[in-house]
Amino acid sequence: MSSSATTSSQPRRILSGVQPSGKLHLGNFFGAVRQHVALAQEGAECLYFIADYHAMTTVHDAAALKQNVFDVALDYYALGLDPDRAIFFRQSDVPQVCELSWILSTLAPMGLLERAVSYKEKLDRGLESSVGLFTYPILMAADILAYRSNLVPVGRDQVQHLEICRDLAVKFNLRYGDVFPLPEYRLTKESKVPGTDGQKMSKSYGNTIDIFAEGKPLKKAVMGIVTDSLPLEAAKDPSTCNVFALYSLFASQEEQDALATLYRAGGMGYGAAKSELLAKIDAYFAPARERRRELAANPAQVEAWLAQGAERARAIAGETMRLVRSAVGLRSMPS
Amino acid sequence: MSSSATTSSQPRRILSGVQPSGKLHLGNFFGAVRQHVALAQEGAECLYFIADYHAMTTVHDAAALKQNVFDVALDYYALGLDPDRAIFFRQSDVPQVCELSWILSTLAPMGLLERAVSYKEKLDRGLESSVGLFTYPILMAADILAYRSNLVPVGRDQVQHLEICRDLAVKFNLRYGDVFPLPEYRLTKESKVPGTDGQKMSKSYGNTIDIFAEGKPLKKAVMGIVTDSLPLEAAKDPSTCNVFALYSLFASQEEQDALATLYRAGGMGYGAAKSELLAKIDAYFAPARERRRELAANPAQVEAWLAQGAERARAIAGETMRLVRSAVGLRSMPS
Repeated sequence: MSSSATTSSQPRRILSGVQPSGKLHLGNFFGAVRQHVALAQEGAECLYFIADYHAMTTVHDAAALKQNVFDVALDYYALGLDPDRAIFFRQSDVPQVCELSWILSTLAPMGLLERAVSYKEKLDRGLESSVGLFTYPILMAADILAYRSNLVPVGRDQVQHLEICRDLAVKFNLRYGDVFPLPEYRLTKESKVPGTDGQKMSKSYGNTIDIFAEGKPLKKAVMGIVTDSLPLEAAKDPSTCNVFALYSLFASQEEQDALATLYRAGGMGYGAAKSELLAKIDAYFAPARERRRELAANPAQVEAWLAQGAERARAIAGETMRLVRSAVGLRSMPS
Repeated sequence: MSSSATTSSQPRRILSGVQPSGKLHLGNFFGAVRQHVALAQEGAECLYFIADYHAMTTVHDAAALKQNVFDVALDYYALGLDPDRAIFFRQSDVPQVCELSWILSTLAPMGLLERAVSYKEKLDRGLESSVGLFTYPILMAADILAYRSNLVPVGRDQVQHLEICRDLAVKFNLRYGDVFPLPEYRLTKESKVPGTDGQKMSKSYGNTIDIFAEGKPLKKAVMGIVTDSLPLEAAKDPSTCNVFALYSLFASQEEQDALATLYRAGGMGYGAAKSELLAKIDAYFAPARERRRELAANPAQVEAWLAQGAERARAIAGETMRLVRSAVGLRSMPS
């Protein structure tokens, strides 16, 4: 559907931003993190940045910002992101995106941003209006274009921002000559992970089960999953049960079939099912929890990996900005 | 009138932006350039940047941008700006201002920019609306604050932008701790230089006499100055004559008195007065024209001076960004 300045012989470069917005939950994991890790394993050139510049539109506390950024890095490394395969870095370690952002802003008609739905939605949700919130799609476009990304996996709410980015890339190329490949997007599947109340799992609903929760807090979250109130002995329908849905994410087909049989037979209580789920979560994330503890005790290692990612990202962005500055008539910067 | 985070023992740092908007005329010279040169001679720490990022809101041709920037540098050096005293540099040689711009944008309520009069005026003048044009005051604030400037000489039309800058500095200091001194502004005197039609000299009126014009084009401009149509023999009023007003900018008091006497006596024609003015202009700018020719033949020297200015400016902005990034919770950048 979309044309592109890239040819098929070029390596596909995939870009994705990660919000440093606190503790990851199962919805994040099955909706995004797992795919991020897997894509990098499959050998695509993946750039994942921790969107700390963006986070500044809502996080105004220096210590909180720092902590959130470090935490999400820990989470990703612990969950298997290979720092040698993926280029994983802090957005703010590549300040060139801010320069590109200015340049793109001179190409962007005001109407392009005024039509952006997510800005209005953020205001509707009670966020304070700011210029940063308004120009956010331009910085997002700069993030994508600075790495001359080919593919951006996005949720449905980000499609309009991708269109803005493509629009700016076209405008730039028309005005100054071809520099940017047209990034394509791939719609990520809507997360099917239910929260403890049966709605989609989301921090804003307060219905999350956190990946790195363990012990009492984890037990409390799992035991709090809402079910119907059928008595122990009643036959139960696995297809409408939140506990079963969550269990399915972790269990093999055989295990799922076995539990479904028990559900339908009656005599299997939700409490017992929750205990099975809890055991599965514990087992599934045990290695990641262990790695996370080790890494948390070794911040220098985390920092070194992030620095390595930043260096690789800066090299790409630096080359892009060399092309951009030359195209628009600015002097090439001393290296 | 304005409070300030600086103490009187700190050196006063003066910042001013120079638009790379083509040929300088007498209005530019007597309104700004002469003061720029003099301030630097007087020993204040002066930073003057060629506003090429800003120019991108209106200049969309790479070659034109480059030429305009080089030309205004030539003009300033030729007119006596000492590259060892003033820190004279291209705005885009310090891309840190774009990063600061993003950070300030997260602090700026939309209303702050929506109230900016100059944006509306630019649209009224027929400029195409763009996000860059709209966020221009934020980049201007970043320019001022990146160098922790104490004093900014501005024209009346820029006072609101200075207020926006001060507002953002206060907001930043309140939220993240004191980093920025509050810049003060000094209103530059309205240029009294009349154009060839008697209105204020301005490129937008097409009534300029260019500093580096000479020979036929200069003669044509001077001879085209509008006067009344009194005959040669009539007594004339020097206080209402454009030719006399321009002559006064160059002539000593004695010379002015002598010409005024001739005016009032009658018998002095406007053609003769224009010839006197032309001779004055030629004599006044002869050394600068000569220097400009020499420099134009030696672009490597111009480039070396600009690079020297950029290095000094980057050192200051780099230190500011170290403070800013630490204050907001971003990692200090590798040098």
